[in-house]
Amino acid sequence: MAKNGNGKADRHNLMQRYLEGNPFLTDEDLAHILKVSIQTVRLDRAELKIPEMRERVKNMARGIYRNIRAIEESEIVGQLVDIEMGREGLSILTVNETMTMSKTRVLDGRYLFAQANSLALALIDTDVALTGTAKLSFKRPVFKDEKVLARATITRKKGNKYMVRVSSHVKEDLVFQGKLLVFDLSEEVNKLENSP
Amino acid sequence: MAKNGNGKADRHNLMQRYLEGNPFLTDEDLAHILKVSIQTVRLDRAELKIPEMRERVKNMARGIYRNIRAIEESEIVGQLVDIEMGREGLSILTVNETMTMSKTRVLDGRYLFAQANSLALALIDTDVALTGTAKLSFKRPVFKDEKVLARATITRKKGNKYMVRVSSHVKEDLVFQGKLLVFDLSEEVNKLENSP
Repeated sequence: MAKNGNGKADRHNLMQRYLEGNPFLTDEDLAHILKVSIQTVRLDRAELKIPEMRERVKNMARGIYRNIRAIEESEIVGQLVDIEMGREGLSILTVNETMTMSKTRVLDGRYLFAQANSLALALIDTDVALTGTAKLSFKRPVFKDEKVLARATITRKKGNKYMVRVSSHVKEDLVFQGKLLVFDLSEEVNKLENSP
Repeated sequence: MAKNGNGKADRHNLMQRYLEGNPFLTDEDLAHILKVSIQTVRLDRAELKIPEMRERVKNMARGIYRNIRAIEESEIVGQLVDIEMGREGLSILTVNETMTMSKTRVLDGRYLFAQANSLALALIDTDVALTGTAKLSFKRPVFKDEKVLARATITRKKGNKYMVRVSSHVKEDLVFQGKLLVFDLSEEVNKLENSP
């Protein structure tokens, strides 16, 4: 019994950590990762007062879009799930068939770039931002119905230049990495607008 | 008169060279570049038996799509205008408002990447090709109604890896550069399909 009790506490701990890393894990995903039944996952969530995935995402999404300045909500590829302006952001893209290439059935790389690029722009606390350069690395093919969780972090700021690193995962697999240099052009635009 | 004659021959020469570099130049563009009237450009074209832009593009497009293997025609962003399989290709993207970002009115970078990436894939003479890495450089903002001419060239081939360089111009301005590493995966796929 004592062992069982510890097992459960450990599992609760693990579950909370996994969900912090990726709030989009479904009960099925958690059951698979923790090697327990879906029923057990549901009971655990109830005890821990963790709502189901859909509800979690809705809660997170509220208010997230409110602070974004450099890009319109509708232009963000994927769904924003968390953003700390000027620091870090998370978005999730659910791959549907129209995004895959018919020859290979693999997600077209442009979507991974667009998800990363729009997330990077959303992070910059300014009204005008543009991407200058980008280094992209496509690590493994992504297929229909997979969910891509992108995490973008501003790693350096120098003057009006921001270095943003993006890592995108499907579950535990790294599928894409990007290093983007984004320019805050608000001052340039202000100067143009105020010049005679 | 003699001088005029030489001027015209020079102009004919220039016009042909410009049109080889960019078959999408309109009569207006040519008039601007050559500093003559549109009427003069039309007369020159008639003498040189060069059809008008629309007709030129239609002629070029015929048969171009026939040889492509690694990507579906419908998945190519922009219009293919010339392709020499395994060597070089040209495509043109006309920017409309839906492709621009509403905050900055600038073409969303994903389209420049998608144009370059789909053109690079179209060049590879294989049934299965995927992009591994990409270095992108956005040189100047592109706006609505501008035409982006992308030129992709295979600069190196080593085993199943192709290095493809892409330069995209709006008229004489370089707006985008990309260096893509593309993998021909047809052998891997064949192995998988033939394994028991």
